[in-house]
Amino acid sequence: MSFDPETLPGGGLGWMDGTGEQAGVVLSTRVRLARNVEGYAFSGRAREGERLRVLSQVRDALSVIPAARDGVLVRVDQLEEPDRLLLHERHVVSKELAALDTGTPPRSGAAVHVGRDVAIMVNEEDHLRIQAMRSGLDLDRAFADARDIDVELGQRVPFAYHREFGFLTACPTNVGTGLRASVLVHLPALVLTKEIGRVLVGLQQVGLTYRGLYGEGSEVIGNLFQISNQTTLGKSEQDLLDYLQDIVRHVIEKELEARKVLLRDAEYILEDKLWRAYGTLRYARSLSFDEAMNFLSGVRLAAGLKLIDGLSVYILNELLVFTQSAHLSAREGRVLTEDEASVVRAAFVRETLERAAQ
Amino acid sequence: MSFDPETLPGGGLGWMDGTGEQAGVVLSTRVRLARNVEGYAFSGRAREGERLRVLSQVRDALSVIPAARDGVLVRVDQLEEPDRLLLHERHVVSKELAALDTGTPPRSGAAVHVGRDVAIMVNEEDHLRIQAMRSGLDLDRAFADARDIDVELGQRVPFAYHREFGFLTACPTNVGTGLRASVLVHLPALVLTKEIGRVLVGLQQVGLTYRGLYGEGSEVIGNLFQISNQTTLGKSEQDLLDYLQDIVRHVIEKELEARKVLLRDAEYILEDKLWRAYGTLRYARSLSFDEAMNFLSGVRLAAGLKLIDGLSVYILNELLVFTQSAHLSAREGRVLTEDEASVVRAAFVRETLERAAQ
Repeated sequence: MSFDPETLPGGGLGWMDGTGEQAGVVLSTRVRLARNVEGYAFSGRAREGERLRVLSQVRDALSVIPAARDGVLVRVDQLEEPDRLLLHERHVVSKELAALDTGTPPRSGAAVHVGRDVAIMVNEEDHLRIQAMRSGLDLDRAFADARDIDVELGQRVPFAYHREFGFLTACPTNVGTGLRASVLVHLPALVLTKEIGRVLVGLQQVGLTYRGLYGEGSEVIGNLFQISNQTTLGKSEQDLLDYLQDIVRHVIEKELEARKVLLRDAEYILEDKLWRAYGTLRYARSLSFDEAMNFLSGVRLAAGLKLIDGLSVYILNELLVFTQSAHLSAREGRVLTEDEASVVRAAFVRETLERAAQ
Repeated sequence: MSFDPETLPGGGLGWMDGTGEQAGVVLSTRVRLARNVEGYAFSGRAREGERLRVLSQVRDALSVIPAARDGVLVRVDQLEEPDRLLLHERHVVSKELAALDTGTPPRSGAAVHVGRDVAIMVNEEDHLRIQAMRSGLDLDRAFADARDIDVELGQRVPFAYHREFGFLTACPTNVGTGLRASVLVHLPALVLTKEIGRVLVGLQQVGLTYRGLYGEGSEVIGNLFQISNQTTLGKSEQDLLDYLQDIVRHVIEKELEARKVLLRDAEYILEDKLWRAYGTLRYARSLSFDEAMNFLSGVRLAAGLKLIDGLSVYILNELLVFTQSAHLSAREGRVLTEDEASVVRAAFVRETLERAAQ
């Protein structure tokens, strides 16, 4: 079965349109609720039959929920790896659900229901991971979207719930609200001014966590950071969201200050660096993914500072998604080697930027 | 006195037009004849009055020689340093004649007579340095040009000549024919394939010498090498020229082979590297001279390999000359600091390449 992600509502890319609050720094907001269906073992320990019954119950319920009506259910367990990777690159399924890099096929019953702004994973670590995404900083609307589905689903499917602890989840860190909210921010100026280390340590000190959107550990690619809450227990959803929002606003402020400092103290050096990144993207014949992300980070900063005209956040987000290897392979209609992908990636970036410059 | 080099015939840049044999590898050919006027001490030991008499005699003679009629005589000793640097950047006077980096003013009587393809320095190390330049590999015509002037001048000004040794010169290495012929070659592929070391050692073994057009010692900037004869004694001019020509042709062959090898074994890597150089030149906001030369070397190679269209050798030569700091200062009408020059240089390169791309 070969899968065309364009058949998904909005291509599963509703978060990409570059609108929303603080779109110059915040790419997107994601709220995820973890839920499990009463009477079944958690997905990881359940037998195949149980997982398939969970899936069938959820599918039936979703089909009658207004907020989920336009969605499409994709059986991840029936997709080949390139297609699973494609869905992951669209930020619609997790690495775990798509069983990437594991050498094993996905869990039977693994599926995702994709709507314009939601993606509900079934039989991931928890039976249900209701995710809502919004462009820009918009925790309230993302939460409202997820909550709508949650409430409607909960009326049709009995969720595992404990009076004292709240929602029960496979991993204890998710018990309680089951809420994980995260904001994807672009922090190039904090990286350039080397303040990023202090900011990230600060996040941990106030109980938040972060990871690079791409890259592992300290090797964050493209200066893209996902900031999210760590606690889900003992606070209300609204408190968790408000707290995260306050801290994220503080980080945004720091980033904008750092941009001002760079412009003030090193305008020529900064301009030169960013334009060179643009020049390389405009003309390179081969670009690794990491390189592309890092140069695009420069161009995104330049666009934000109005040093480069005519480059919308939408185009930059598009480049973020479509330069990933499964997308390039899909474009070429065959699985590319890394070297081939670098060449196709460079061509795609060139064409996109050339079109934007006209 | 402020000097406008555009008042020189052809701007003193006749060698730059990118025509001539092997113009893809050879930028230009230069033949220089060292001569001294009988009855005077060599310039370095002469008194001011002697040097001025030499100058006046030479000037009178030049004014009636058909081959020198269209020329312009410039009193280098009456120019400010920026103007002397400008002449040096046009390859019309030596560092020594222009007294650059010496902290002392030029020698009184220091002058240069510039014609379309010749530049005759007066009161350099020798009383006369008759130089002829041609675009591409053209030792015969360059020699003929220099020889014409030499013969005509020799009929009007008595040259110091020894029956056994030949022409007498200030430095013993020039005694004999007084001929120094040099060919300016661009050897990027030999540098990329790391064969350059072997080639340069080979040149020395066969009695030739080389130096970087820019940069000192092993730090050759822009992969531009001047190959010239070392001996001037005991061989006829024609033998010296033929020998140099044979060896230079061999070096050109090696360079062209190396280009083929690069295209065959590393086409994508090469293309990518060269296009990135082009992209950086198209968009950088600040370029040091060394950087500009090195990136331009990549672009020159790309143009030679027909990877980049529409860039003539003429444009590339123009960039070589006009991105030097005295030229940038002249353009701005004031002496620029190094940082300012980098910014003006980047703007000039951008505009030139943009115009060429249209």
